[in-house]
Amino acid sequence: MPLQLYERNAIFEACLSVFARHGYKDTSTGMLAEAAGISKALIFHHFKSKKLLYFSLVDHCFEKAREELRLEAVPDYGDFFEAIDAHSRKKLDYFRKHPKDIQLIYEVYYQPPEELKEEIDKKYGHVLASKHEVWERLFESVPLREGVDRKQAFELVIITLEHFENKFVTEVTDLSAIDDHYIENMFKKMNEFCTMIRHGIAQNHA
Amino acid sequence: MPLQLYERNAIFEACLSVFARHGYKDTSTGMLAEAAGISKALIFHHFKSKKLLYFSLVDHCFEKAREELRLEAVPDYGDFFEAIDAHSRKKLDYFRKHPKDIQLIYEVYYQPPEELKEEIDKKYGHVLASKHEVWERLFESVPLREGVDRKQAFELVIITLEHFENKFVTEVTDLSAIDDHYIENMFKKMNEFCTMIRHGIAQNHA
Repeated sequence: MPLQLYERNAIFEACLSVFARHGYKDTSTGMLAEAAGISKALIFHHFKSKKLLYFSLVDHCFEKAREELRLEAVPDYGDFFEAIDAHSRKKLDYFRKHPKDIQLIYEVYYQPPEELKEEIDKKYGHVLASKHEVWERLFESVPLREGVDRKQAFELVIITLEHFENKFVTEVTDLSAIDDHYIENMFKKMNEFCTMIRHGIAQNHA
Repeated sequence: MPLQLYERNAIFEACLSVFARHGYKDTSTGMLAEAAGISKALIFHHFKSKKLLYFSLVDHCFEKAREELRLEAVPDYGDFFEAIDAHSRKKLDYFRKHPKDIQLIYEVYYQPPEELKEEIDKKYGHVLASKHEVWERLFESVPLREGVDRKQAFELVIITLEHFENKFVTEVTDLSAIDDHYIENMFKKMNEFCTMIRHGIAQNHA
């Protein structure tokens, strides 16, 4: 029996909530069925397996994020460090609007369930790689001090930014509850860290 | 019935292997008993619970590492960055000699089982804090550029070093199989990253 679109969306949203809260491994089909208000048999009928439902949701989240964050517009900023700041703010706004999405995407990136690791790498490895590609290309216009390896300098920036993102996602359990003050502080700190690194790697940077 | 010391050690080693390989959550008392070659009842008799056995093992690993790594000798190096390099090499040697220990310690630090988080924080939070204290004190003698916040500069170094440690522990599943070439490359890279940061934060550092 085919699902109505609105019904499918409601089931999707309900299942997304469960996966986001409990993670893939600790989510059972029973929990999904209960949250969606339908039978386990119906879940299996429409989505075949917990795994396929999970991947449908991940696809959906990636697609939504891709459309809204428009990574392809990053090079328009010209300056790498300005672009990092602007894009991070855009991303944070997106996280706040769609807190469940980020929990799911975060799991896929940073804590992939053991049994899905290989498949995740095959399906989404290129997404992560292409995300870095855009930044790496923009980073090429940063003039570096002599002796600094461009690849390593880029990696140092990414390590630092990912540390902030990681800390943020694990610390903040309720995205809707964080206030502007918290956010400004976070971006201020991120900028100060970028400034230290920039001093360390860039040419004539005062 | 009291256990002979050698028997207790053998049980300890067997259980450490199981916890190290599967992690706390996915280890059952059945698996522990089987590996140790004794009955589940005997495990419960001597160690009361899976949790208490786990904590005994963690205590044991921390104590061993503390004795051998002698963090209190760090200030003798004088220079912060030299000390980082020397101590990291010592630590790596230790890891290679006791690969199971590091898997367990790593889980406690970086991926504490949800149900033990609070207890781990209470029991071992101070270990991590005091570890950083030694380094933070030595870092005080690094002369900084004007405008650089000492706390933030220290944090940037720690973020970077922990990134390397993290990557190393998750990537290298068989510590005994890594060769000298791999290790020299890792330390070379770590040093190059420290040099970039040092340039960014330190006074008159050429």
